[in-house]
Amino acid sequence: MRMYDIIDCKKRGLALTKEEIDFVVQGYTKGDIPDYQVSALLMAIYFQGMSLEETAYLTMAMASSGDQIDLSPIQGIKVDKHSTGGVGDKTTIVLAPLVAAAGAKVAKMSGRGLGHTGGTIDKLESFEGFKVELTEEQFFDNVNAHHIAVVGQSGDLAPADKKLYALRDVTATVDNMSLIASSIMSKKIASGADAICLDVKCGTGAFMKKLEDAKALGKAMVDIGNHVGRQTMAVVSDMNQPLGYAVGNALEVMEAINTLRGKGPEDLTLLTITLASHMLMLAGLAKDVEAAKNQIQDLLSTGAAIDKLKEWIKLQGGDERAVDDFSYLPQAPYHRDFCLNQIGYVEAINAEAVGKAALVLGAGRETKESSIDLAVGIVIHKKIGDKINVDEPVATIYYNNEQKYNLATSILEKAYKISDQQIEKPDLIYDIIH
Amino acid sequence: MRMYDIIDCKKRGLALTKEEIDFVVQGYTKGDIPDYQVSALLMAIYFQGMSLEETAYLTMAMASSGDQIDLSPIQGIKVDKHSTGGVGDKTTIVLAPLVAAAGAKVAKMSGRGLGHTGGTIDKLESFEGFKVELTEEQFFDNVNAHHIAVVGQSGDLAPADKKLYALRDVTATVDNMSLIASSIMSKKIASGADAICLDVKCGTGAFMKKLEDAKALGKAMVDIGNHVGRQTMAVVSDMNQPLGYAVGNALEVMEAINTLRGKGPEDLTLLTITLASHMLMLAGLAKDVEAAKNQIQDLLSTGAAIDKLKEWIKLQGGDERAVDDFSYLPQAPYHRDFCLNQIGYVEAINAEAVGKAALVLGAGRETKESSIDLAVGIVIHKKIGDKINVDEPVATIYYNNEQKYNLATSILEKAYKISDQQIEKPDLIYDIIH
Repeated sequence: MRMYDIIDCKKRGLALTKEEIDFVVQGYTKGDIPDYQVSALLMAIYFQGMSLEETAYLTMAMASSGDQIDLSPIQGIKVDKHSTGGVGDKTTIVLAPLVAAAGAKVAKMSGRGLGHTGGTIDKLESFEGFKVELTEEQFFDNVNAHHIAVVGQSGDLAPADKKLYALRDVTATVDNMSLIASSIMSKKIASGADAICLDVKCGTGAFMKKLEDAKALGKAMVDIGNHVGRQTMAVVSDMNQPLGYAVGNALEVMEAINTLRGKGPEDLTLLTITLASHMLMLAGLAKDVEAAKNQIQDLLSTGAAIDKLKEWIKLQGGDERAVDDFSYLPQAPYHRDFCLNQIGYVEAINAEAVGKAALVLGAGRETKESSIDLAVGIVIHKKIGDKINVDEPVATIYYNNEQKYNLATSILEKAYKISDQQIEKPDLIYDIIH
Repeated sequence: MRMYDIIDCKKRGLALTKEEIDFVVQGYTKGDIPDYQVSALLMAIYFQGMSLEETAYLTMAMASSGDQIDLSPIQGIKVDKHSTGGVGDKTTIVLAPLVAAAGAKVAKMSGRGLGHTGGTIDKLESFEGFKVELTEEQFFDNVNAHHIAVVGQSGDLAPADKKLYALRDVTATVDNMSLIASSIMSKKIASGADAICLDVKCGTGAFMKKLEDAKALGKAMVDIGNHVGRQTMAVVSDMNQPLGYAVGNALEVMEAINTLRGKGPEDLTLLTITLASHMLMLAGLAKDVEAAKNQIQDLLSTGAAIDKLKEWIKLQGGDERAVDDFSYLPQAPYHRDFCLNQIGYVEAINAEAVGKAALVLGAGRETKESSIDLAVGIVIHKKIGDKINVDEPVATIYYNNEQKYNLATSILEKAYKISDQQIEKPDLIYDIIH
């Protein structure tokens, strides 16, 4: 088998075989195939596309290029959830205890963040003492006995994907649906879950700006998952504005706790219930989506969900008192309201700009080496469609340094677009893909 | 300027600017831009194509990436000729003295061969003592006083093309018309000629197998040349069988000499007259092609052409007695007729196979380091359309070693396709492109 022939084959629009794709992925990971041949192949794939079979072969080749988590010591169907990423996305912190309380097994590995705010693992460290590293035994024991464990990513998952992504990033070959879908799915599959629930974000604050692209990505990933024997479904949800109100690690934890008490923002609550009910379906724990939704809503209103949160935080060594008393969470030394001095209706919020403002406050990492301040961030008060009266603040900024505050406000000033006409609130759930 | 943006721009089908193309070619030649980005760009070019302007920018960027020959010490219009390469192509040895005798200035740099037979420079060394290296002064003096000098390629012409070609060769991005055309033209332009006459070979023995591709390549090169101010035209000629009869260095020289005496093979004679007459037109030495053809024919019949050949060989230190007496040329120790033991008409000759047979006899180089035997080769006696009678040899093999002879015959046996139906002789000149 020669790499030249594989490039030529794809260039002429022919499908690659499993053997050819394995040859490329293994050869590239080992360093036997040079970057310049792989980048030519990637560009040919950009133009000629890949079939579902090819995409599935690529996904599995990347998934098996490194460590693969074996979740078999956990009984039952293990359901994982993945979001394509947005601003203010604290969904995992609500979802994990919620579906665990409903009887599902949550055995999750989560990442630290690079960008606007920290990742789920960073956010969880807002609970003092929370351990994001567990031994394998502890991890399995916790899930078997308590249905929940969330730890930092360990091991070398899908190194082929890392290497390929880095190459795509510098050769303008990122934006191909098959390549994006297989990149995400390879990591999910290596993480060992039996079923996967995907949250594909769509809008100005997401990687997918257009609904048709988000739907196509969702479909591509669902197809891959189901093709390789992992039950997969996707929710396509709005990211034209931050999800909920809080953007910043401890601030988002507080919002997640409120949501688990049934007192969260409308959009975050709706998205969580939607994802959770589908996760229960995937886990075989509900006879239909309606039944699942009712069950989830009960857990929120009876306090079972919040109890599971406390149990979880305590299990991983965290101070669960913070659930009832936010003064146990990191507190920013300063906060100040942010006004726009305009009257009207919010027409648009640039979610990326809000994320950027949180980042400059110190809530996120600019590089892998940056340290983050869990306390700082932004809580917006007005979302698309909301009315703003004179001198009414549109956000509150939590900060630790005047200079960073000034930088953040200068970014926030451009984030809001105000109309004098009434504006309709956008949809949150665009599509459900099975 | 960022290479990423340039790749992305071409990927989206936009035209690159002169500045962007210069940036790529200069950066790649210097090693500032890595292979993997350039190969991604090349694949994007394969799919999106390049406009004439972009192709011309690329050509000039490559032409100016290394040494550029300054032919200004030679008065008048300097016309160069280039063939895209075929089997038995000894045209330059006929053309050079022919157009020189007609008053044109031939200041030619030619290469050594890699493949079937040697290149023009190798073939000329069949004349004992012939010097393929001249000082710059000698070179210019010879052309000014005698209208002719042919030397080996010196200097570092279009190194960007060499580097890009090597990358294309391993990334399946050779077969793009703009890239092929700019590669050839960059070297021709760096060689300094004012006008360029191209011989685009077409058929089973050529790089371009299909007539439409050969025409497209001819047009692409003519357009580039004219666009950058070098008068350029192309002849598209047949390469479905070897040109003339002889394949092998000294054997081809003999055939060239016969042709200059007006006693050459029909196809070689016709091609030479066609190319020569257009070269005279490009040089401004004839009022129309008919007049040029008549002038060329006169030179062949009066002996003026053969006299110019002798003058040239002597000027460069060669033994010009060989022109009248072939025993002064290298002689193979053995030769043997080759029969097919079939009766019928020649339907096809695989020119590449004939070339390969000459190569294994020692007429060509397998690698740059191989030495060649100028004497060995093949003279075919039957061409497409010719009738073969019982026991009539279709070729004579000139060899120096029985083992090589056996290898060559085993290749030659498969080169001929014989029909019992009468077969029409193919056209030689398919198109003339201005």
